[in-house]
Amino acid sequence: MQEINRRVVLSRPVQGVPVASDFEIAETPIAKPFQGEMLLRHIYLSLDPWQRSAIAGRHSADGAPLRSGDMPPGEVIGEVVESHHPKAQPGDYVRFMGGWQEYSVALGEDVIKLDPEQAPLSTYLGVLGMPGLTAWASVTQLAKVQSGQTLLVSAALGPVGSTVGQIATKLGATAIGLAGSDEKCRRVIEETGFAACINYKSDDYPESLRSAVPNGVDVYHDNVGGQMLIDAINVMNDYGTVVLCGLISQYNDASAAVNLPMALPIMKRLTMKGLVVYDYNDRQQEFFDLVAPWVQDGSVKYVEDRATEIISTGGHFARLMRGENTGKSLVVLGPERVG
Amino acid sequence: MQEINRRVVLSRPVQGVPVASDFEIAETPIAKPFQGEMLLRHIYLSLDPWQRSAIAGRHSADGAPLRSGDMPPGEVIGEVVESHHPKAQPGDYVRFMGGWQEYSVALGEDVIKLDPEQAPLSTYLGVLGMPGLTAWASVTQLAKVQSGQTLLVSAALGPVGSTVGQIATKLGATAIGLAGSDEKCRRVIEETGFAACINYKSDDYPESLRSAVPNGVDVYHDNVGGQMLIDAINVMNDYGTVVLCGLISQYNDASAAVNLPMALPIMKRLTMKGLVVYDYNDRQQEFFDLVAPWVQDGSVKYVEDRATEIISTGGHFARLMRGENTGKSLVVLGPERVG
Repeated sequence: MQEINRRVVLSRPVQGVPVASDFEIAETPIAKPFQGEMLLRHIYLSLDPWQRSAIAGRHSADGAPLRSGDMPPGEVIGEVVESHHPKAQPGDYVRFMGGWQEYSVALGEDVIKLDPEQAPLSTYLGVLGMPGLTAWASVTQLAKVQSGQTLLVSAALGPVGSTVGQIATKLGATAIGLAGSDEKCRRVIEETGFAACINYKSDDYPESLRSAVPNGVDVYHDNVGGQMLIDAINVMNDYGTVVLCGLISQYNDASAAVNLPMALPIMKRLTMKGLVVYDYNDRQQEFFDLVAPWVQDGSVKYVEDRATEIISTGGHFARLMRGENTGKSLVVLGPERVG
Repeated sequence: MQEINRRVVLSRPVQGVPVASDFEIAETPIAKPFQGEMLLRHIYLSLDPWQRSAIAGRHSADGAPLRSGDMPPGEVIGEVVESHHPKAQPGDYVRFMGGWQEYSVALGEDVIKLDPEQAPLSTYLGVLGMPGLTAWASVTQLAKVQSGQTLLVSAALGPVGSTVGQIATKLGATAIGLAGSDEKCRRVIEETGFAACINYKSDDYPESLRSAVPNGVDVYHDNVGGQMLIDAINVMNDYGTVVLCGLISQYNDASAAVNLPMALPIMKRLTMKGLVVYDYNDRQQEFFDLVAPWVQDGSVKYVEDRATEIISTGGHFARLMRGENTGKSLVVLGPERVG
């Protein structure tokens, strides 16, 4: 086992859309786990848009942005190297908020033990992880999608969006995606089975959206906010539901609020609901029982956008925050099994 | 009976906040009712903010604004003068969308017969009319207000707001009002029994709002939109409900959309629901059975802002649209009983 832990830290405060050079590698000794703790070797690091908000300080108690030398947070899949807690033993796999680094020490009660037989390990960060739980909560708990409805979802190739659309399809709904290129849209349809996908950067948008939903939209899952929310509301049916889940359009610039014409939600009698996935942490099993069999039998697909090695992390995150990722963004930090 | 019907028509297209000189009187012959119709003598004309939208064309099929010579729509309480329909006979009182005039001819099926023994006639335009039905739908159907909750409502001296607060209080909630002057706030508390009322034009607003709701707000009934909606969302509790019901702030200027920071509804897991009162037209009896006894026993109050004579209509409407009305705005066009 190596002696040194490499982590990604800010090389300077991040302004607007991040670039690779906002980040640099710092080396630290690998910490020793004490009673109740475990040492984890990180295998997969999850990169997610919420981490941009965390870098801006919007997830911290004091609201202060991260500074030079600070490490962004991030969920990881790790292998237990040494354990002083009964929950997992060396060789076991766990999920943990381990940060942008190669090793971490976790409190035993803070890790979730994973079963590598049930699904590929990396899916515990995506379709079977927090993004999947988010999608499950949106479709089954907030929007309560019904067979025959039309559901629209933004960032449709991303891990939340693609799972929202696929769960909705499983429940008998028609899933329509929004994505930022023709190539992404092609993959949304061909690889994840959406009925249609609209490139919101094409010249004929939003007319193309209107044409794609001749019967209107009953449920819109919003990962993006901004103008895309307004475009979606414009094609919604009366009594429709909007799940407000993400604000990718604002994570780089929090001042970019939506100039929402509120007459539309009134006239259409819409219900708009805010979703925070942490509310559903105690429903993990219910979610897993529904979706894991579909992942196992291949009827629910997942698309991953992988980078390799810790040094790729900053650039891969910048790619995500430019909206250029195709699928769940993650960094492979090491092999699933060593030696 | 007089031979001439006086009506209020536009003297010119209305721009922004209306003024009295935007309107003038036109005289027409009193029409004759045919088979299935009734002739109504108007007693009370209801003035409502939605009529500003109607003048701007936002309630018409073609979206065209009303022009010089056009009469705005409005609900009236009328006495039946002549009837060729079994629903009501001469001397009966009815409610009808009769417009800004002294007489109208109604199809029998379009009128609602009123019982003057059950409540004062004018209340059928306010606390027991469309505003009251709106309030009932908001509190009992959309927000489902519970005992112990804190409810905030804007335009709290208006007919919707004051009824929202009073029904909520009856159900065991704490009602907090927002109004535009210290005098209005005094009346909201003293005459309609709200627990508190905040003058949103005072220097210490919105800090004064925050101080008034130490336990936060569970339900906000929004009659206004605009900045007041954002101020309200700022003091809402997690999992709270916003009923989006009116946009007084935008009726004079439809381009005044809300620059809503959507992160707040997400972080607070709010549910925001659009309310259109017409959806509850078939629930009139349920509403009436709950609220009419409270009006009869005096435990639910109503505040009226009356003008007299058809010639006062334009100026009284301008006053309403400047937010200077105190209570339900109506014009007394004639006595309840002639001779």
